[in-house]
Amino acid sequence: MRALPFLLLLSASATLHAAEGMWTLDNLPKEELAKTYGFKPDQQWLDHAMRSAARLAGGCSGSFVSEDGLVLTNHHCVAGCVSNLSSPENDYLNKGFTAKTREEELVCPGNEINRLESITDVTARVREATAGLSGKDYIDAKKAIEAKIASECVGDDTANTRCDIVNLYQGGLQHLYRYTRFSDVRLVFAPEYAAGFFGGDPDNFNFPRYNLDMSLLRVYVDGKPAKIKDHFTINPKGAQEGELVMTLGHPGSTQRLLTVSQLETLRDQSLPERLFSSYELRGLLLRFSAESEENARIAQSALMGVENGIKSNLGRFQALTNPAVFEEKRRAEQELKAFVAASPERVQRYGDPWSEIEQAEKVARALSREYGSIEMGLMSQHLGWAKSLVRAAAERGKPNGERLPEFTDAALPRTQASLFAKTPMYPEYEKMRLQWSLEKIRERLTADHPFVRELLATQSPQQLAASIVDGSKLADPEVRKALWEGGAKAIAESDDPAIVLARKIDPHGRALRQRMESEVSSVETRAAERLAAARFEQKGTSVYPDATFSLRLSHGTIRGWEYAGQTVTPFTQVAGLFERATGYDPYKLAESWLNAKAKLDPATRFNQVSTNDIIGGNSGSPLINAKGEIVGLVFDGNIHSLGGAYFFDESLNRTVSVHPAVMIEALDKIYAAKHLVRELMH
Amino acid sequence: MRALPFLLLLSASATLHAAEGMWTLDNLPKEELAKTYGFKPDQQWLDHAMRSAARLAGGCSGSFVSEDGLVLTNHHCVAGCVSNLSSPENDYLNKGFTAKTREEELVCPGNEINRLESITDVTARVREATAGLSGKDYIDAKKAIEAKIASECVGDDTANTRCDIVNLYQGGLQHLYRYTRFSDVRLVFAPEYAAGFFGGDPDNFNFPRYNLDMSLLRVYVDGKPAKIKDHFTINPKGAQEGELVMTLGHPGSTQRLLTVSQLETLRDQSLPERLFSSYELRGLLLRFSAESEENARIAQSALMGVENGIKSNLGRFQALTNPAVFEEKRRAEQELKAFVAASPERVQRYGDPWSEIEQAEKVARALSREYGSIEMGLMSQHLGWAKSLVRAAAERGKPNGERLPEFTDAALPRTQASLFAKTPMYPEYEKMRLQWSLEKIRERLTADHPFVRELLATQSPQQLAASIVDGSKLADPEVRKALWEGGAKAIAESDDPAIVLARKIDPHGRALRQRMESEVSSVETRAAERLAAARFEQKGTSVYPDATFSLRLSHGTIRGWEYAGQTVTPFTQVAGLFERATGYDPYKLAESWLNAKAKLDPATRFNQVSTNDIIGGNSGSPLINAKGEIVGLVFDGNIHSLGGAYFFDESLNRTVSVHPAVMIEALDKIYAAKHLVRELMH
Repeated sequence: MRALPFLLLLSASATLHAAEGMWTLDNLPKEELAKTYGFKPDQQWLDHAMRSAARLAGGCSGSFVSEDGLVLTNHHCVAGCVSNLSSPENDYLNKGFTAKTREEELVCPGNEINRLESITDVTARVREATAGLSGKDYIDAKKAIEAKIASECVGDDTANTRCDIVNLYQGGLQHLYRYTRFSDVRLVFAPEYAAGFFGGDPDNFNFPRYNLDMSLLRVYVDGKPAKIKDHFTINPKGAQEGELVMTLGHPGSTQRLLTVSQLETLRDQSLPERLFSSYELRGLLLRFSAESEENARIAQSALMGVENGIKSNLGRFQALTNPAVFEEKRRAEQELKAFVAASPERVQRYGDPWSEIEQAEKVARALSREYGSIEMGLMSQHLGWAKSLVRAAAERGKPNGERLPEFTDAALPRTQASLFAKTPMYPEYEKMRLQWSLEKIRERLTADHPFVRELLATQSPQQLAASIVDGSKLADPEVRKALWEGGAKAIAESDDPAIVLARKIDPHGRALRQRMESEVSSVETRAAERLAAARFEQKGTSVYPDATFSLRLSHGTIRGWEYAGQTVTPFTQVAGLFERATGYDPYKLAESWLNAKAKLDPATRFNQVSTNDIIGGNSGSPLINAKGEIVGLVFDGNIHSLGGAYFFDESLNRTVSVHPAVMIEALDKIYAAKHLVRELMH
Repeated sequence: MRALPFLLLLSASATLHAAEGMWTLDNLPKEELAKTYGFKPDQQWLDHAMRSAARLAGGCSGSFVSEDGLVLTNHHCVAGCVSNLSSPENDYLNKGFTAKTREEELVCPGNEINRLESITDVTARVREATAGLSGKDYIDAKKAIEAKIASECVGDDTANTRCDIVNLYQGGLQHLYRYTRFSDVRLVFAPEYAAGFFGGDPDNFNFPRYNLDMSLLRVYVDGKPAKIKDHFTINPKGAQEGELVMTLGHPGSTQRLLTVSQLETLRDQSLPERLFSSYELRGLLLRFSAESEENARIAQSALMGVENGIKSNLGRFQALTNPAVFEEKRRAEQELKAFVAASPERVQRYGDPWSEIEQAEKVARALSREYGSIEMGLMSQHLGWAKSLVRAAAERGKPNGERLPEFTDAALPRTQASLFAKTPMYPEYEKMRLQWSLEKIRERLTADHPFVRELLATQSPQQLAASIVDGSKLADPEVRKALWEGGAKAIAESDDPAIVLARKIDPHGRALRQRMESEVSSVETRAAERLAAARFEQKGTSVYPDATFSLRLSHGTIRGWEYAGQTVTPFTQVAGLFERATGYDPYKLAESWLNAKAKLDPATRFNQVSTNDIIGGNSGSPLINAKGEIVGLVFDGNIHSLGGAYFFDESLNRTVSVHPAVMIEALDKIYAAKHLVRELMH
């Protein structure tokens, strides 16, 4: 049920809900934790938790769960890897994968796992280097100082260290996050798609649920399993209703502190346009998948991603088209404006950041069609590689501080890793997506737009796509490597059609990106700095920053909810899974489960809901109790959680996780993975 | 360019623009016509114009152009018919069709053309019969009186007469429109798709254009070409820049008089949901079409319709998400509210229709998901037929006044004609669409919704769709006829799977339809009556009613426009077509044109723009001059015209039409149709 009316219940109060907040580990709401739950974590608890949490660089969370580098995360977080490793003969995505020995563990191409080691406030250094600047000067200075800080932090250890500048509070604070970087990630266990994603898209974001959305990876160092001192252990008993549970993960992005004009752009332009495009792509992929089993396999993980994106963006769109949400946002903005206006000193200090942002949003709206089409519009592996190679050749010749962020010394290793990863190429699929994205560019800009004329000349999108995919050699990682190593000269001389096209597009894309940065993001960041400062003055540290794919803790309790007169209880059991299984996709149960039915205890807890405040990116987060034991594996939110991008409503917003009991039961009785159970329970 | 900023120019003035208005023929802005153009049409002119205009019941306009029943309309208005008549051997849609003799003219299955004969104001009769009633009583009484009036009007002549009650001003006035009904419609001429729709979707709603979007039909009576006294003649010279030109056609629907709360529902829910669904369907059809030439042919006209709908709904959505548009709508509403509030007598007379509508909109929003899924959600020929048969069996047993509108005596002939029409059945295509729409219902309502459980039970959408399409015999018109004639007993006893499913859905669909009617449309109609009356008191007859697919005249002049510093001139020429042709779809020119290039005068005018106020449904309208000669054939609007659903902006909103010169030139020199040229020029 993704009905809207629940939003009408939205409280007009500006006070935080008990469970609200995605808190950074250096600024937890300690008073709240002590008062509400009697929980007072010491520094040792926090350090252990921080070093037991894992970040999947591709956009998920996870946790270390053994001293031999085992990492617990969701099935849907490794679906891309499993799909890349699959072939018609070894269809791991649909048939599942269990490594019986460490030798059988398979390298996930291009995957990277990060472990946070330290957080340092570098706001003062960044402010100093950018003081008094604006527009392009500001962007350039900010880029330079951030590259410098990150570079110093990484030092010579580019292979194993990663340092990111995290902009908190819309750029109000800059923190330096130093990570250990694990770039040899191997697949240990993944259940069948039908078990990991039982109920498929129809059940996604719904509850009751019955998903074994778990997988196990292992990080390797120097070809051997990494030795991990800090890791969580699993408590198969889980937590009881009402008990304190915490998620420790990497929520990707929330927009709770955006101004009204920024939210209007999302509501009126960005979200609908993203949805329009995703829906059309979904239709294309649905039919492509219906053509053959092999096509279904090829498109499976992409389709899963598109459908998940649709549900989540639709939930956001519906939240923003609810008048009650906007009213509350307007009210909160008015309150802060009044707070500033009440003192001439504050007016002097903060100015009018709202109007500055509103002006920048006008530019963003006007540029978005060209920016989205020319800089971001091509859906193609070939052109992704080519763009990366063309830009790298130009950027690597510049001083570190002047490069685009993805080509700074600190970032180069992962740009390279993702460029050189061995991923399969399906030419028909690639042609379809490239042709379609060329058609969309022509549609959005019209056939008479100068860029479209230059791009297509007298070719049709179909022809151009075919000529790239048939003619380019970039699908061979060795060719990409040679072009990378050949640098600017090799790129300039290449007659590979993907490189030729990327060279043609590059100046247009760069120009638009630069305008977006100097006329929109830099203006908004500078304004947000002052907004954040005003908010600090108004509310102190009671405010948490928007999610930025950096480590956050959110607290809550195991709890169901009531909606439209119905009570939803917090746990499901194995018995319910067998009741729900119709025998047909997406309610077709994996055979291994059907065969094991007699061995399973029907009362085993399966999935559960809790009041934690999470968002996309939190997938794979451990749900831990006060003792730091894993009592759940976060994999979803309920339908009401989708408005969480903009606000938190404790009465309805729920986190959905896999219960530890079913994880152990399944590994033991269904997947014959006693060796993994032993390792996990150790 | 469907960029938004132009809307910011929107004038805040509430006065009518010179060319604004889709006027009914019994209430033309005579003073305006005389003052602006010195044009004073007498009753004879008007009667002749009215009887020369044609309405294609399927949703287009046209005009009678010879005494032997020839009808001029757009190619895209007959694409459905041409597609139905096409086969892999005779691909008329892509290769074109020209009947060399009358014997070669082909019956368009299920098509109907109407000619307006008279307009009678029946408001007083309807008001009298519904006085003091509300909710279901009001609906029932209104249905009964309207069925009675229509039935009296049709009399015994159901085959040749059609009478519709037209609700003008959101139900403020009821007019009875009596039409002659031509149900034997034959295809005479259609150019190749590549000529009729050159530039395809990318150029749709754009200008400059080069479309020969014309076709010729002929109406037959008793197996012979109908004798038509009133018809237009074509003036191949066309009109000059600045000259008065009028469209005479059937604009389908505008929403210019809707209240702010109704517009909000459109902006926040109806339009985006329609777009989401259309985009996904488009993706599905794009890939289906890419699978083979035959599939492309099968889906061609559906895809054309979906893409056209996307562009037009997107234009509307973008208009409504523009703050300037809503501001002007709010201003106008406030003005009318103030006018009412200024006099206690008016408050007494009109009450607060805005709040009543706002409450009804809340119900509409809450019901829309179920209504759209259960009553309107199945995309399937089989279930369309089955629903019609199941309902007809029940409705035909009731007194005329108590039936659903489509089964009243007056409406039965066309319901029957469309049900018995011989249309081709493509099982794979039908399965794909039905499966997809079943999946969408499950997605929108969730798998746990009681209706979804009843609908699918333990079947997957794919299985259910296959069982219907493989098992049903309804594709045979004789089977449909037998079920129709067998009435309620035959329907109750049928084990045809489509009928079985339709019987299962019917009570749910009816219940929702009834709630929508009694809680939404009846409330809003009653409120709109008072709004209309208040508007009359405020503005007199200077206001025109929203479009209702009834005959309207709009006046204007041949004129280009300026936008973003560029001047667009009003005419294109044949030379431009050849410049634009790249050789590849959708810029691939038909071979007949390439072969005839040397014979064509490159200076021949091709397409043109004028300031007339039109909307979807106007396609096929004649553009006439003051002498009543055809000087253009309306087929599109420019991109700025899409906001025309809600407001008219004379500086940018343009009608796009085919110039008469190119029509005659093409028939003569390309299609070797001298006999048609002779008939047209007679």
